[in-house]
Amino acid sequence: MNKQQIVSALNKVREQKPLVVNITNFVVMNNTANALLAVGASPIMSHSKQEMTEMMSFAGALVINIGTLDSVWRPGMFFAVEQANENNKPVILDPVGCGATKLRTSTARQLAELADNLIIRGNASEIIAMAGEKSQNKGVDALDASEAALSAARSLVESYACSVVVSGKTDYIVTKERTIALSNGHEMMPYVTGMGCSLSAVTGAFAAVGETSGVAAAAIFAIAGEIAAENSQGPGSLQVNLLDSLYQLSADDIESRLKFREC
Amino acid sequence: MNKQQIVSALNKVREQKPLVVNITNFVVMNNTANALLAVGASPIMSHSKQEMTEMMSFAGALVINIGTLDSVWRPGMFFAVEQANENNKPVILDPVGCGATKLRTSTARQLAELADNLIIRGNASEIIAMAGEKSQNKGVDALDASEAALSAARSLVESYACSVVVSGKTDYIVTKERTIALSNGHEMMPYVTGMGCSLSAVTGAFAAVGETSGVAAAAIFAIAGEIAAENSQGPGSLQVNLLDSLYQLSADDIESRLKFREC
Amino acid sequence: MNKQQIVSALNKVREQKPLVVNITNFVVMNNTANALLAVGASPIMSHSKQEMTEMMSFAGALVINIGTLDSVWRPGMFFAVEQANENNKPVILDPVGCGATKLRTSTARQLAELADNLIIRGNASEIIAMAGEKSQNKGVDALDASEAALSAARSLVESYACSVVVSGKTDYIVTKERTIALSNGHEMMPYVTGMGCSLSAVTGAFAAVGETSGVAAAAIFAIAGEIAAENSQGPGSLQVNLLDSLYQLSADDIESRLKFREC
Repeated sequence: MNKQQIVSALNKVREQKPLVVNITNFVVMNNTANALLAVGASPIMSHSKQEMTEMMSFAGALVINIGTLDSVWRPGMFFAVEQANENNKPVILDPVGCGATKLRTSTARQLAELADNLIIRGNASEIIAMAGEKSQNKGVDALDASEAALSAARSLVESYACSVVVSGKTDYIVTKERTIALSNGHEMMPYVTGMGCSLSAVTGAFAAVGETSGVAAAAIFAIAGEIAAENSQGPGSLQVNLLDSLYQLSADDIESRLKFREC
Repeated sequence: MNKQQIVSALNKVREQKPLVVNITNFVVMNNTANALLAVGASPIMSHSKQEMTEMMSFAGALVINIGTLDSVWRPGMFFAVEQANENNKPVILDPVGCGATKLRTSTARQLAELADNLIIRGNASEIIAMAGEKSQNKGVDALDASEAALSAARSLVESYACSVVVSGKTDYIVTKERTIALSNGHEMMPYVTGMGCSLSAVTGAFAAVGETSGVAAAAIFAIAGEIAAENSQGPGSLQVNLLDSLYQLSADDIESRLKFREC
Repeated sequence: MNKQQIVSALNKVREQKPLVVNITNFVVMNNTANALLAVGASPIMSHSKQEMTEMMSFAGALVINIGTLDSVWRPGMFFAVEQANENNKPVILDPVGCGATKLRTSTARQLAELADNLIIRGNASEIIAMAGEKSQNKGVDALDASEAALSAARSLVESYACSVVVSGKTDYIVTKERTIALSNGHEMMPYVTGMGCSLSAVTGAFAAVGETSGVAAAAIFAIAGEIAAENSQGPGSLQVNLLDSLYQLSADDIESRLKFREC
C-alpha cells in the first residue's frame, strides 16, 4: 500500500459514505460516531439482537468494542458477529482492557474466534494479553515492548487469520503478508479518551470500502491527530481539532506527512 | 408565529428554566444535556420505571429518543409516556432510524399512538418511514424528497393529532393549522452526530413553557447552528460553537437572520 | 492543607497515574474519563459484577455516580463498594439527583452506609436531601442555602464518618476536623453538564494517592474551571478549555489563584 492508495481509500469512504454498525462502549459512543461522520462515513450505534439481522444486511462493516462489557450486551456482540459472517461483512474488534480482567480476555478471544473477516485494533498491552501464552513463550522479558507486541500481533494473525493494528508511539499493522510501521501521531493523543476506539471505528469505514488491511485508516487517523495536536493547547482542544482535521484532511496532507516503512 | 414570539419563547425558557426529562440514546446524552443547559433549560436523563412517576410529576416535558433502542429500555419509554399523559405534559418523540429496522418503526408508531400531547421531530427518511403506506400511496417516486416528507408529515399530523418537525436543508414544521418552511442552518450540521437529537431535546424545553408547535425551537436551533458553522473549521469546532451560540443567542440574531415562510 | 500540599498532591497524581474505577452515569462517561486523563490519572469505566473483584484489586479508588440509576446497574454499585472495602480503597459517592426521587435518595444513603472509606461530593440540594430530617430539624427555613448545606454536610460527616464536598458558588469541604470554604470557580460552570461529576471523578484520583480530604481535588478543579471560563465564549468552549486547563495547570496557577479559608 502506497501513499496514492491511502488517498484513494479516503476518497472512496467520502464518496460511498459506508454505513458502519457499532456495538461500542458508553464512554466513546459520541466521539466515535463523530469520527466516522468526519471521515465521511455513516455511523449507526446499535446493540439489540432484535434489529441486528436487518442492520447487518445493509451495513458495510461491524465494529465491536468491549470497553464497558457486561453480561447484558455480551450475547448481542456474538449474535452481531454471526450476522456479519452471514453477510460476508468485515468485523473490527477493539479488545479494550484485554488482560485487565478474565471476562475481557476470554470475550475478546471468543469474538475473534467467531469472526470470519477480522481486523483487531488494540494497544500493545491488549494485543500481548490477547495473544496470551504464545507471545509469553517467546520471552517477553527479553524483548522491548514493541518487539513483544509485534510478536503477539503475529501470533494473533496466525491464530485468527486476521489483520492486527497495534497502536502506540509507533503503530504497527501486521497482516499475513507484511508488517508496516507507521510513525505519525502525537504524544498528546493518549490524553484523550477513546482515541484508539475512534481509530477502530474509522478502520471499519475503510474496511467497508474494501481496505481491509487496516493500513489506510491507521495512516489517516495518525496524520489527522498529528495536525490536530500541533494546533492544540491540551487534550480538550485536541479532541475538537481531530474531528476538524479528519473532515479537512487532504491528499497533500497525507503525501507530505506520511511516515511508514515495511519492517 | 412571528419573530417577536420566537424571541419571547426563548426568554421564557431562560427565565423559567423548565425541567426536561429525557429517555434518549447513549450517543447523544452528553450533547443533548449540554444543548438544554445552553438554551437555559434544566435536563434530567432518566430511564428507570422506578422513578418516572415522580419525575413526570415535576417535569415540564418528556423527550423520547429511540436511537439505541433495546428491549431493556423499551418498556420504560411506554411507561414514561403514560406518566406524561397522566400529568398532561407534552411528549417529544425522536424516531431515530425509523424505517431502518422493524423494531424502530413499530416502536415509534406505538409511542406516537400512546402520547396525548405529541411533537414528532425527525429527518425526511424517518418521517416518511413512520408515515408508511399512507405517504407511499401518494406516489413517492413522482415527488421530490421534500414533497414526500411534507406529505408524510401531514399524514402523521392527522393520524396522531400532533405537530411534526422535519429537519433537513429546509426544515418544515407541520401543524394542524399550517406548514412553516425554515431555511436557516448550515450544510456542515449533518457532520456532527446528534444535531437532530439536540433539536428534539430543545423542542422539549420550548414545549415545557407552552410553545408546542415546534417552530420556535427549530428556528433558534437552526440560527444558532448557522452562526456556529460560520466560525467553524469542521464538525469538531461546530459542536463546540453551537453550544456557545445557543448560550449567547440574542433577539437581534433571531430578528436579523430568521428566514421562514408559510407554505 | 496549604497551597504547597495541594501542588504536591497534583504532582503525585501526575507521577503515579492512579487507576480510578468509575461506575458512573451515561451522560458524563466521556467527559469524566477525559477529566481524569487531563489531570494525569488513568480512568476505567466498568459496571459488571463479573470483573469488579479483579478491578478493585488493582485500582486506586472507586467512584460511584447515580446519575442514570436503574435496577440493572444498582446491584453492581453495592458489589463494587464491597470490593473497595475488601481492598481498603476509598469510595467517592456522587449522589446525583438525591432528593428528586426516592430511588436516588435511598440508594445514596445505602451506598454511604456500606462504604468504609468515603467521600461524598454533591451540590447543596443533594447534600441537604441526603442528610434528610437531621438537617431539617435544625430549621432550614431560618438559614441561608449555604448554612443549610453546611449543616447537612456536618450531619453526613457524623453519620457516615466521611468527608463531604459541597459544590456551589463557594465550595465547602467538611471533614471531621475542619471546614474549608473555597471561593474559586466561575458562574458559567453550571451551564456545562457533568462539571460536578467530573470533580467527583477527579476527587477519586486524589484519594487514590492519599489525599482523602477532598480539598486538593476541589481546589485544582475550581481553579482550572476559572482559568478555562475566562477564555470561553460559552459552555461549549468552557468544556473544552477545562480539559486543557487541567492538563496545563501549574504550581504557579494554584499559588496565585487559590482562595480558601477555614470556617
